[in-house]
Amino acid sequence: MELISLENAINILLQHISPIKQIEEKSILDSLGFILSEDIYSPINNPPFNRSPLDGFSFNSDLSLGASKNNPKTLTVHNEIYAGDHLYEDVPSNMAVRIMTGAPIPNGCDCVIKQEEVIFNENSNLLTIFRELKKYENFCFLGEDLSLGDLVMNRGEIITYSHIGVLASLGIENAKVFKKPKIGILSLGSELTMPGTELKNGQIYNSNLFTIASKLNYLGVEAILYPPLKDDIDEVSNFIDIHLDEIDLLITTGGVSVGKKDIMHDVLKKINAERLFWKVDIQPGTPVLASLKNEKLILSLSGNPFASLVNFELLGRPVLDKLSSGTIKKTSTILAEVVGNFSKKSIKRRFIRGYYSEGKVYINNDKHSSGTISSLLGKNSIVEISSGTPFLIDGDKVKVILID
Amino acid sequence: MELISLENAINILLQHISPIKQIEEKSILDSLGFILSEDIYSPINNPPFNRSPLDGFSFNSDLSLGASKNNPKTLTVHNEIYAGDHLYEDVPSNMAVRIMTGAPIPNGCDCVIKQEEVIFNENSNLLTIFRELKKYENFCFLGEDLSLGDLVMNRGEIITYSHIGVLASLGIENAKVFKKPKIGILSLGSELTMPGTELKNGQIYNSNLFTIASKLNYLGVEAILYPPLKDDIDEVSNFIDIHLDEIDLLITTGGVSVGKKDIMHDVLKKINAERLFWKVDIQPGTPVLASLKNEKLILSLSGNPFASLVNFELLGRPVLDKLSSGTIKKTSTILAEVVGNFSKKSIKRRFIRGYYSEGKVYINNDKHSSGTISSLLGKNSIVEISSGTPFLIDGDKVKVILID
Repeated sequence: MELISLENAINILLQHISPIKQIEEKSILDSLGFILSEDIYSPINNPPFNRSPLDGFSFNSDLSLGASKNNPKTLTVHNEIYAGDHLYEDVPSNMAVRIMTGAPIPNGCDCVIKQEEVIFNENSNLLTIFRELKKYENFCFLGEDLSLGDLVMNRGEIITYSHIGVLASLGIENAKVFKKPKIGILSLGSELTMPGTELKNGQIYNSNLFTIASKLNYLGVEAILYPPLKDDIDEVSNFIDIHLDEIDLLITTGGVSVGKKDIMHDVLKKINAERLFWKVDIQPGTPVLASLKNEKLILSLSGNPFASLVNFELLGRPVLDKLSSGTIKKTSTILAEVVGNFSKKSIKRRFIRGYYSEGKVYINNDKHSSGTISSLLGKNSIVEISSGTPFLIDGDKVKVILID
Repeated sequence: MELISLENAINILLQHISPIKQIEEKSILDSLGFILSEDIYSPINNPPFNRSPLDGFSFNSDLSLGASKNNPKTLTVHNEIYAGDHLYEDVPSNMAVRIMTGAPIPNGCDCVIKQEEVIFNENSNLLTIFRELKKYENFCFLGEDLSLGDLVMNRGEIITYSHIGVLASLGIENAKVFKKPKIGILSLGSELTMPGTELKNGQIYNSNLFTIASKLNYLGVEAILYPPLKDDIDEVSNFIDIHLDEIDLLITTGGVSVGKKDIMHDVLKKINAERLFWKVDIQPGTPVLASLKNEKLILSLSGNPFASLVNFELLGRPVLDKLSSGTIKKTSTILAEVVGNFSKKSIKRRFIRGYYSEGKVYINNDKHSSGTISSLLGKNSIVEISSGTPFLIDGDKVKVILID
C-alpha cells in the first residue's frame, strides 16, 4: 500500500469532521475559554442610573456660576447619598447633596465636585465652593458603559476573563456556549497494565494513555481514559461499538502495524468502519490509521510512545482544532539551527524530539528511539528532518514545530 | 500620606509572602501544572525486559554467520512470542522464535530480524534468512529507557504532559506536589448585587468578583468567590476573621479610598491587621491598600472595575507568581508605537487599556474611564503612560504590558 503524504492525511481528516455545534448553558465563571453560541445584547443600561465617580458634593452647576477663590459661593447641603442608597428624591434647586463614589446623582443635580476642593461645615451643613463647575462635570451618565439593547458580544467569540466581567456587570449569570470536544482514548496491547498495579512478566505500564490524556487536558479538552484492552478483536470491537456514541473522537494507540497482533484492521472491518487512510509518509508513526464509523472519526495511532505523540501532534491536533472551532492552542513552526547531531539517514520525513530556545534547537544526547519515553522530558518541540537527509550536524537549518 | 512607587509596593508585598510549601498527593493526571515536591527515582527497569522493537524473528546472531542472498540460512522456528506473553522459556541454541513488537526477547537470542526480510513457511516452521545479523541488532535492552534507581525528575520541576507520561511508564500513579494558592475574593459595597438577581434602585451588578476570579482561573489558580458584603465594618471584619484561615491570600475590592464609606481602613484596625502600604503612585487604582494579618496578606484593590484590574495585574500578579513558585503565566513588557490618541494629561503614572499587535498598540475609540468595563473586551494589554505626559498621539512610543 502506498504511503500518503502528511498534508494529504490532514486534508482527509479535516474533510470528515465539523466543528461541534451542540450548545450547553454554563455559569459565566465556568464558560471561560468556551465559544459563545449566541449574540449578547445588553439587558440593562449600565450604569443603571446617573452616578457619581467620586466622593464629593452634587448640585445644579448653575449654582456655581461666578464662583472663584475670591468670590466663593455657599450652598446648603440637603442630604447625604451613599452607594447603594435607593434615594431618588429630588434635590431642591438651590441646594446640594453630599454624595459618595458610586451613588446615584439625584434629579436636579448635574455635576459633582470633589470633597478635597471644598470646605464643608458639618454642623451648619454649609458647603463653600471656590470655582465654577461645568454642566455634567464628574457625572457618569446612565447607560454610559452600555445601553439597553446594545450588541455587546457576538456569537463565535471566545469567552475571556473580560467577557465574564462584562457579562456579570450586566447581571447575566449563565451563557450559552458550544460544547467542547470530548475525546476517548483507548490503548490496545495485551502487554499493557495500568500504573499502580503490579507488573507481571512480559508486561509494561501503559504510558500513551496518560501522555495523550494530559496533553488533551493541557489543551483544555476533556479526555475520557478507557482502560487498556488486550489484543482481542471481539473485545475491542464491542468496546468501541458501545462507547463511540459518548465521545466526539476516538483516539486509539497500538495495533495498527503489520504484525499478527495488529488487530485494528480486523476491528474496523468488524464494526463496519470505513478506512480513510492507513500509513503516512512520516517516521516514526508510519502506520497511523484513520477511519469513520457513523460519521465519527477514529484516529488510530502507533503504539510506540514517541510515535504516538508524533501522530497526535501532527494529525490529532488539527482535528481537535477544527472540532473545537479553533479554541485550542496552536502549534507553530519556525526555522532553527541545530545544536548537536543526529546520525541516522532519514528515508521518510522524520520527526525527532528537540528543545527549542532562541533560534536554536538542541537535539544532543537524546535517546531518539520511538519506544523511549524518558527523553521527552524537557523537550518542547518536534524537529522535522526532510526525507533523504543523510544526517544532521551542528548548524544545519531545520523546521521546528513548537508543541507546548 | 505620601504615595509610594509601584516598584516599592511590589517589593514590600514580595517581602511578606513565601512560596507555598504545603504538599499534597495527586493522581498523576491531576498533577498537570503543579510543582513536584519530591525527587523521582525510577522504581523499575524500563523496559522491564529485553524487548523486540518490531515484528519478526529472534535467534542467536551466530546462527546467521555467513548468510547472504546466495547463501541463505534456514532455521527452525521453535515458538511464537507476543507482547504481553509471560514466556521466558529458553530457546534451543540452534533455533529461532517468531516475535512481535513489544514481546520479551527470550534467553539465548540476541537479535531480531524484520518479518519483511525473511521467508517463513508456516507449515514446516522453517525460516530462511538472507543476511548476517549483528549482535543486539533490533534489540531493546532491559532498562534502556530508565534503570532501577535512576533519578528521573527533580523536586521543583513543573509537571507537564511528558512528566505524566514518564511517571505512568514507571507505574507511578500518584505524585507529591506543592499545593497551589487558594485565593479568596471579597467585594465590598452596599450597592453591589450578584448577577442573576433583580437590580434594585441604586444597585449595580458585582463585576469585579467575576473579572478577577476568572483571571485567576485563567492563570490556573483556585479562586473562592465570597458573596459581596455591605459597607459595614463589623460584618466585614467578622467575615475576614472567619475566612482568612482557609485561603493563602485575600483580595478585596472597594472601600479603600477616602469617602465616608471607605471602611477597609477601620476593618483592618478592627481585625488587628498591620498596614503595609496605602496609596501607590499609579492611576487608576491609587488607593490600593496592602495589609498583613497572622502573616497572611490582604490585598485591597480599588472598587472601580478597570482600576481593580490594574491593581490586580500590577500588584496581585507578582504576589501570585511568588506564592505559586513561578508556575503562573507571566506578563511581559514591550515597547510599542501608539495608534490613536489619548488626550488627558497624566500627572501620575497612568495605565490605560490597549490592544497590542505586531509592534503597535491600539488605544483608539475607547472608553477609558476606570468605572467602564465594556471597553475591556478585545484588549490584551495595559499601556503605561509616564507621569507628566501631556497626551499621547499616533506614533508615540510607550511601554505595553501584555496581560493575557
